[in-house]
Amino acid sequence: MPITVVGSVAFDTVETPAGRRERCLAGAATYFSLAASFFSPVRVIAVVGEDFGPTEESVFAARNVDIRGIERAPGKSFFWQGSYLDNLNEAKTLQTDLNVFAGFEPKIPAAYADSDFLFLANIDPVLQRRVREATPQAKLVAGDTMNYWINDHKPALLEVLKGLDILLINDTETRMLAGNNNLVQAARAVMAMGPRMLVVKHGEYGATLFYGSTSTTHRTECFKTPAFPLEQVTDPTGAGDSFAGGFFGYLASQKDLDFATFRRAMFYGSVMGSFTVERFGTDRLQALTRDEIEARFNQFRELTHLD
Amino acid sequence: MPITVVGSVAFDTVETPAGRRERCLAGAATYFSLAASFFSPVRVIAVVGEDFGPTEESVFAARNVDIRGIERAPGKSFFWQGSYLDNLNEAKTLQTDLNVFAGFEPKIPAAYADSDFLFLANIDPVLQRRVREATPQAKLVAGDTMNYWINDHKPALLEVLKGLDILLINDTETRMLAGNNNLVQAARAVMAMGPRMLVVKHGEYGATLFYGSTSTTHRTECFKTPAFPLEQVTDPTGAGDSFAGGFFGYLASQKDLDFATFRRAMFYGSVMGSFTVERFGTDRLQALTRDEIEARFNQFRELTHLD
Repeated sequence: MPITVVGSVAFDTVETPAGRRERCLAGAATYFSLAASFFSPVRVIAVVGEDFGPTEESVFAARNVDIRGIERAPGKSFFWQGSYLDNLNEAKTLQTDLNVFAGFEPKIPAAYADSDFLFLANIDPVLQRRVREATPQAKLVAGDTMNYWINDHKPALLEVLKGLDILLINDTETRMLAGNNNLVQAARAVMAMGPRMLVVKHGEYGATLFYGSTSTTHRTECFKTPAFPLEQVTDPTGAGDSFAGGFFGYLASQKDLDFATFRRAMFYGSVMGSFTVERFGTDRLQALTRDEIEARFNQFRELTHLD
Repeated sequence: MPITVVGSVAFDTVETPAGRRERCLAGAATYFSLAASFFSPVRVIAVVGEDFGPTEESVFAARNVDIRGIERAPGKSFFWQGSYLDNLNEAKTLQTDLNVFAGFEPKIPAAYADSDFLFLANIDPVLQRRVREATPQAKLVAGDTMNYWINDHKPALLEVLKGLDILLINDTETRMLAGNNNLVQAARAVMAMGPRMLVVKHGEYGATLFYGSTSTTHRTECFKTPAFPLEQVTDPTGAGDSFAGGFFGYLASQKDLDFATFRRAMFYGSVMGSFTVERFGTDRLQALTRDEIEARFNQFRELTHLD
């Protein structure tokens, strides 16, 4: 089933212990859509500037990602510069230029109207909500956010959460959003805000899917996937968005959204995140094959299963 | 098969967000032996002071732990005071009194001579080595250490590592010992120092068992266990030692030490760590039953397995 994703399509300059890359194609919607495209058709809603040209278009085209919803505006695309020299697990932001993103008014092409799956990547919750309201047909809605929106735009974010089936955020964001340091208690508090499922991303330690208490035990149930042990992390940018793409892309490819499907989706999310960080920007996703994905999925099983 | 463990038997005063406990029975050898005792017979080598009396003895006796190797010395037992008020994942040490431990000369009772399994808990590597040399019959030897010995007593520690089959340490210690920030590369470097297996404990994120490269692929193989998602962590003290006890105790209970056994041992380690932190000191281990252990083991399977 097709997925519509709204989020940033951007250029990043990153420096990591492995080197430096100038202005590579990036942004949450880019990583998400490339990762998800291995499982399901993907349609992007975003805005780019005049620096987005045929080279960038061809990256999406090679993965059959529909970019009719990427608006071209006068000026430059969103630009982010960050450094992982001090800490591979957390970027230090050196520069953020919103550029054309500052005046972004998401428009949903008529051709996207039959998307049953909607992903609201990390952008202003006011825009997330607008897209959610403009896509009433969506049957499964997932989204991401970040500390800035949690701290400074909480009322708008809470409105978005009411319309989400699944929220994907990291440990710190979960604790911040709930105001509770115990992750299990925090997860339950976040689910009470709307989403019936919560994926907490732990960076190099994998991710946990929390799903509501069972009515009999009131226990909060969960499922865990590790991160793949990599000998070389070249560029951590986009790991979380690629996780979301693998997770949601796999869900959208399945008929039955039962719990076994969600478990496999967690593994596919972790698989896609592990590939992205192997090279700068989207290089690894561009070169990836479905066979490699399946091989690593099986390695994840070996890593975690008793028998 | 019986296990001999050498390490600290101590009194701890801890404060955590859940409360404060004065002078509870603690120490690495205590947590290890109580946890391991659910799987195998355990024999302790340690030194205690005159404050170790019938109450403390009865804790070991109730789990059939052999304490004939616990020497009684004039003075007070090892004492540690720590606080987890700022961070449940890492204690702030407020006081350490070595007391009788300062002059500890481990003596191995003749009755321990047939222990095929030896665990060298976190103590001065000079003592670890002495115990290792005095127990030549030991067929499987595992040990722990900490940042202090890695930083300030590395030559002595390196001698110990040569005689270990399995080393159990945390992420920071692994990176510190190897001088390498990438955990997979660091694990390989540590295994090159002697141990053929390395268990890296990740605190609230579980643990990874690294085992040598296969000769054909040169890949470093590993297996991961999560930590149990707990709604309430009362006192994190002893989690790592209880992990080691569950892990090594289970190994000592099995005939075939094949890889399937090591995988299950990782789960049992994580299970035992998760129980210990539910209450202060050794309270939870004292009240624990084998049925509860098996039930949680099965919950770990549910948490991690696809089918």
